Amino acid sequence: MSEEGNVSGMRLAIMQGESAVLDPTANLAAIREAARQAADGGADLLITPELFPVGYAPRVVRAGLDPALLPGLAQELAEIARTTGVALLASLPEVDIPVPGSGTTEQRWFISATLFGPDGAQLSHYRKVHLFGAEEQEVFTPGDQPAAVVDFQGLRLGTVICYDVEFPETVRAAALRGVDLLMVPTALGSGYSQVPQRLIPTRAMENHLYLAYVNHAGVEDGFHLSGGSVVADPFGRTLAEADEDAAVLLVDIDPAQLATARADVPYLQERRPDLYRSWLS
Amino acid sequence: MSEEGNVSGMRLAIMQGESAVLDPTANLAAIREAARQAADGGADLLITPELFPVGYAPRVVRAGLDPALLPGLAQELAEIARTTGVALLASLPEVDIPVPGSGTTEQRWFISATLFGPDGAQLSHYRKVHLFGAEEQEVFTPGDQPAAVVDFQGLRLGTVICYDVEFPETVRAAALRGVDLLMVPTALGSGYSQVPQRLIPTRAMENHLYLAYVNHAGVEDGFHLSGGSVVADPFGRTLAEADEDAAVLLVDIDPAQLATARADVPYLQERRPDLYRSWLS
Repeated sequence: MSEEGNVSGMRLAIMQGESAVLDPTANLAAIREAARQAADGGADLLITPELFPVGYAPRVVRAGLDPALLPGLAQELAEIARTTGVALLASLPEVDIPVPGSGTTEQRWFISATLFGPDGAQLSHYRKVHLFGAEEQEVFTPGDQPAAVVDFQGLRLGTVICYDVEFPETVRAAALRGVDLLMVPTALGSGYSQVPQRLIPTRAMENHLYLAYVNHAGVEDGFHLSGGSVVADPFGRTLAEADEDAAVLLVDIDPAQLATARADVPYLQERRPDLYRSWLS
Repeated sequence: MSEEGNVSGMRLAIMQGESAVLDPTANLAAIREAARQAADGGADLLITPELFPVGYAPRVVRAGLDPALLPGLAQELAEIARTTGVALLASLPEVDIPVPGSGTTEQRWFISATLFGPDGAQLSHYRKVHLFGAEEQEVFTPGDQPAAVVDFQGLRLGTVICYDVEFPETVRAAALRGVDLLMVPTALGSGYSQVPQRLIPTRAMENHLYLAYVNHAGVEDGFHLSGGSVVADPFGRTLAEADEDAAVLLVDIDPAQLATARADVPYLQERRPDLYRSWLS
């Protein structure tokens, strides 16, 4: 757990928007504009949706994106963080190029998310563990590590991506690593409003953490993305909620609420992990 | 999983009400009346709140209830099921009397729940694993077994109690044992409306099962119980919801919805238990 006595909190910004598939120039311009708004609003951190710089369209991206462009996109994202002074969580495809002589020639593609500090340095990196649906599972390789965590401005930040959060085990693993604010870039289609409205606040409550779930809005490659991004607090209350349109929302994170929630109903202390190991094997 | 092709569903009744502390005669009369209403409404199964026959007042019950009365109360509950033809889930204290010569003289008290079939036979029995708050933890001993499960009318029924359901591990263990309908007697105080309104539907969705969460209403030993009993479906939708008053609600359970939900987003197939074991140890 972070030391809650000596921190003053954080202002968080989330960006919900429509990405232009395979037009990273346009999408990075949108992220830059959101980061400026976040900076003007006094935010310390901006969270953007899953695969926003390239668009949420797995097969189209895999077929049409030159992996050689990815290092340059990461540099531009770092530069946005540095020039605005706002830490930035951004999600890109990650391509693992085979080492010559390794015996394989297969490129592995992951869905990843990287946190850039306000100086542009890479603070954490995460690969999505649970791939959603046939298209993602055809195009991408799943990660195998728990939530990426890093301490930042007195809070422990964690990252997982989209479908990962629907598995309670994922968020529990983050909570056991002391996460105070879980950042979840997503690409949620319409018809699943129970996820932002009920499941996300539940994950926040049952693990006593803040949770930001940040979605696309609009239509990408024919897929209707449902907006509805939310930030939930450690009591399972919704602090901010977007509608179906593009938006930048600002939310203050209060470390005192973490301590109050953890003292009120001590879920993490009252777990019975020895039993769970035998029940869940 | 139960065989879903050859079942026609079940009508469920839930009883929300105020219990009279240490007045089992009055409380069993209330259960009998609810069972009659359930039978008149065509229900196959009635679920009643945590410790309803004795009242939700752990210290008062422990100090004032003669354990010698418990077998008779269980017989009366079985008789209510048999005479109405409605299966009955009822929750009683359970007292473990030391075996002479075992070296201990300490009585252990548990919070238990028993399912009686429509012929009065005991079909399943469960001891609460997660005890809530200082008073329960002082008075009762926690159980150590996962959800009690039994097949009944083509559905697999499971039981856990109150605070147990707030731990995602508990309900996951039930789902991995094939539970179609999880029955949860509870005694939830006011100030925790996120539990019935958000957490319960989330548990139902993330595990693709029906979930009935059945609470007291009113005031018992000075404790204000908040009502709000709910039944959620495997998509995380609320099928029935009580307000703050006593009520018997009827809900139809449709096995076809279980199959549809499980095919739509295959959570249980797409878990990654090998990773979870290393993350959660």
